Amino acid sequence: MDSNIFFKKKNIKLKQLFPTQKSTTNFKVKDIKPLHLAEKDEITFFDSTKYKNQAIKTKASACITTNKLAKYLPKNLEKIVVLNVLYELARITKLIYPTADIDYPDLLLRKPRKTSYNKVKFGNNVLIGKNVSIGKNSIIGSNSIIESNVEIGKECIIGSNVILKNSLVGNNVVIQDNCKIGQKGFGFIPLNKKNIKFPHIGKVRINNDVEIASGCTIDRGSIDDTVIGSNTYLDNQVHVAHNVQIDSNCMIAGQVGFAGSTKIGKNVSIGGQAGISGHLNIGNNVKIGGGSGVIKDIEDNKIVMGYPAVSLKEFLKIHKKNNE
Amino acid sequence: MDSNIFFKKKNIKLKQLFPTQKSTTNFKVKDIKPLHLAEKDEITFFDSTKYKNQAIKTKASACITTNKLAKYLPKNLEKIVVLNVLYELARITKLIYPTADIDYPDLLLRKPRKTSYNKVKFGNNVLIGKNVSIGKNSIIGSNSIIESNVEIGKECIIGSNVILKNSLVGNNVVIQDNCKIGQKGFGFIPLNKKNIKFPHIGKVRINNDVEIASGCTIDRGSIDDTVIGSNTYLDNQVHVAHNVQIDSNCMIAGQVGFAGSTKIGKNVSIGGQAGISGHLNIGNNVKIGGGSGVIKDIEDNKIVMGYPAVSLKEFLKIHKKNNE
Amino acid sequence: MDSNIFFKKKNIKLKQLFPTQKSTTNFKVKDIKPLHLAEKDEITFFDSTKYKNQAIKTKASACITTNKLAKYLPKNLEKIVVLNVLYELARITKLIYPTADIDYPDLLLRKPRKTSYNKVKFGNNVLIGKNVSIGKNSIIGSNSIIESNVEIGKECIIGSNVILKNSLVGNNVVIQDNCKIGQKGFGFIPLNKKNIKFPHIGKVRINNDVEIASGCTIDRGSIDDTVIGSNTYLDNQVHVAHNVQIDSNCMIAGQVGFAGSTKIGKNVSIGGQAGISGHLNIGNNVKIGGGSGVIKDIEDNKIVMGYPAVSLKEFLKIHKKNNE
Repeated sequence: MDSNIFFKKKNIKLKQLFPTQKSTTNFKVKDIKPLHLAEKDEITFFDSTKYKNQAIKTKASACITTNKLAKYLPKNLEKIVVLNVLYELARITKLIYPTADIDYPDLLLRKPRKTSYNKVKFGNNVLIGKNVSIGKNSIIGSNSIIESNVEIGKECIIGSNVILKNSLVGNNVVIQDNCKIGQKGFGFIPLNKKNIKFPHIGKVRINNDVEIASGCTIDRGSIDDTVIGSNTYLDNQVHVAHNVQIDSNCMIAGQVGFAGSTKIGKNVSIGGQAGISGHLNIGNNVKIGGGSGVIKDIEDNKIVMGYPAVSLKEFLKIHKKNNE
Repeated sequence: MDSNIFFKKKNIKLKQLFPTQKSTTNFKVKDIKPLHLAEKDEITFFDSTKYKNQAIKTKASACITTNKLAKYLPKNLEKIVVLNVLYELARITKLIYPTADIDYPDLLLRKPRKTSYNKVKFGNNVLIGKNVSIGKNSIIGSNSIIESNVEIGKECIIGSNVILKNSLVGNNVVIQDNCKIGQKGFGFIPLNKKNIKFPHIGKVRINNDVEIASGCTIDRGSIDDTVIGSNTYLDNQVHVAHNVQIDSNCMIAGQVGFAGSTKIGKNVSIGGQAGISGHLNIGNNVKIGGGSGVIKDIEDNKIVMGYPAVSLKEFLKIHKKNNE
Repeated sequence: MDSNIFFKKKNIKLKQLFPTQKSTTNFKVKDIKPLHLAEKDEITFFDSTKYKNQAIKTKASACITTNKLAKYLPKNLEKIVVLNVLYELARITKLIYPTADIDYPDLLLRKPRKTSYNKVKFGNNVLIGKNVSIGKNSIIGSNSIIESNVEIGKECIIGSNVILKNSLVGNNVVIQDNCKIGQKGFGFIPLNKKNIKFPHIGKVRINNDVEIASGCTIDRGSIDDTVIGSNTYLDNQVHVAHNVQIDSNCMIAGQVGFAGSTKIGKNVSIGGQAGISGHLNIGNNVKIGGGSGVIKDIEDNKIVMGYPAVSLKEFLKIHKKNNE
């Protein structure tokens, strides 16, 4: 079985992907994965010292990287040294997963068959793709679209006008009206006249007991997954970019935005309209004030506020100074 | 008739709700209301000195409160003294209104009958619940959903893809495409593994001559109502949380967010992307600059800007100082 | 043929529009246009010295303006001197285009006929207005609405739940789920009890190779058009107000908001949640940091950040000072 249930995969060998590289090995590429998840016969990529600790331990069979970074990688691994890692990654991902670079609408939708979902309640005009599984006692509101291969657990309440694609949803999850989950995120290699669209082959995983309010957008992962941890609650109009991983028991207020690949710990609360930059690590039990702009990592248990966000103590000091 | 037309109510007596309390009276609970609206045989709650003036005058028959606050309440009223007011309020609201804690999709929708709405124009695929009233000369755009018991006045223009629930809409109101109005707001009592969802039994009241642009979300009230005053205009992607009450003739620009229970006066103008914290009182004729973060009350006629928002004069002084 | 394909126009003569003006000429008004686009037999308006250079060269046959500004206009042009230019403009636009002041839902929608669109793929429940053209190999997702007279180029991917009206879309454009494009913007003349709604008779032009992510709202132009330049990419939940013109190859991150009539140059990148005030000119190759609030023009090649946005150098200086 293919490891990716959402995107059609082509069987291509390593040397076909990189015909000009002097690679010593060759294998049929099973998948493309991040450093810490890649296994035998899979390709990974390594483009920043930030991920050095993961690079050292990767189990991938080949890795796209730069001349500078190659030394951190294990010896028994094919190093594909290139000038632009993300460009090469986009290029081969497009070859292996040709339809993941654009959000092609699912054209296999149909009305749900009573026989396939006999313990699920549906509103009017619900559209369901192929191989969709929905757990018992779940309810799907009117005009909602569940695209092919999506999995929804039991006791879930999905509102009206919701679109779910490329997603795995746990049990007892509430998703309110008008949420759009699993679409392709904002990823491309800028070119002057016509950008190269980065194929996003990841998915969205929504764990048990999550509640997502109206009008949220949650993009699927690019190579890794986007994750909403169990018992985490999102208010209206929250934007979650690709690869963001929010851990359990978090409280995210309205209109908060997360840029790509940021990781949020457990029990984090974030006030309305705060923005979290990309590729950050936010610790456990952190509190971020409403309207803040977070541009660097935050350790466990900190309270921060402001733009750029600083500790609450510092924030109050600055504003006291301003008012003198 | 039940006072709440949107949620099914159970008939429960006070002593059944609080079996361990030594209450001196008992009565069939008619409803749960905020301090200033509660009447005989209704329960209210009082959890902050901020609402002391309303507590003194409440006409409720019982009030959930704390040991410290109980003294402010009238004598002829059953005081239910608890450790966590909101937790107890959530618990009994769930007992009285068992379906208000989750946005269950309306499963009684159907195509509008010509005979019931002979002076209303409908686009395609409109879905209407039970007991919906729509005034003459109103137009409802395609794919819109009007859930059971919603009331819409005359001469209203409702766009396409709109969802209206738990709402009373006045006359001559314009609601553009994709607005979601009346859904449950962001309310729960945090627990480590599975939050208690706070039932929201209020509604949204939209007064005459309001215009709401595309993609806004307006949550219904929790115990009180959410209100948009007459002739108030909202631009695209505005987020209005539960219990917010905006008075008449206000101008709210795009992507503004209101946290819960804040009150906005008349003739207030708010620039794009500004955020207003919860439980604030903003006076009449106030002007709030775009992008501001308002975190305290504002008196009538003030002009404020910045994060945190300060008077325009102060804001200019700070930025002059910064540039020295 | 009428120059405006989206709004029904009434044939009215100049003197009927301004019966109390002592106008020396009279003509059947062909259209209402901005200063730089107006031609013979068209009316324009001039209300700020900011547009002086365009006023000097206008080819309109009549111009609504003030006593102070009239002197900048060409001699051979009927000057309609009034106290409130925008009020008079709104009044006559409503007379000439009576249905442009409210987003009336298109009531002529139907399922697309195979014969009219034989090289286009449609999802389920797509609704199409009259005279819609869609280029070959384009795909339209389920539940999407394409209102009358919209033009979509070839090789376009339109997601599900999209609403397109008053819009011209180029080739190879991707518009993801739930975008609302072409609706009326936020325009009215404030009155105490019932605002005068400003009719918006412009459209949205989306050039080739544009990608627009989920949940964006793009308002049509008021008198001019709203434009998204070729190869420009918008992330989720971006808000583009009326008359905004974004040039080519721009990168706009999630939840950015543009107020009305602002112009953005080529190759501009804007970080998440930034807000750009109205009527500004942002140069080419400008970089605007996430969360910034831009309130004045920016020259070519500048990097700015903060609220209000200043040069990156200044921003770092201020924050170093704050931390001392």
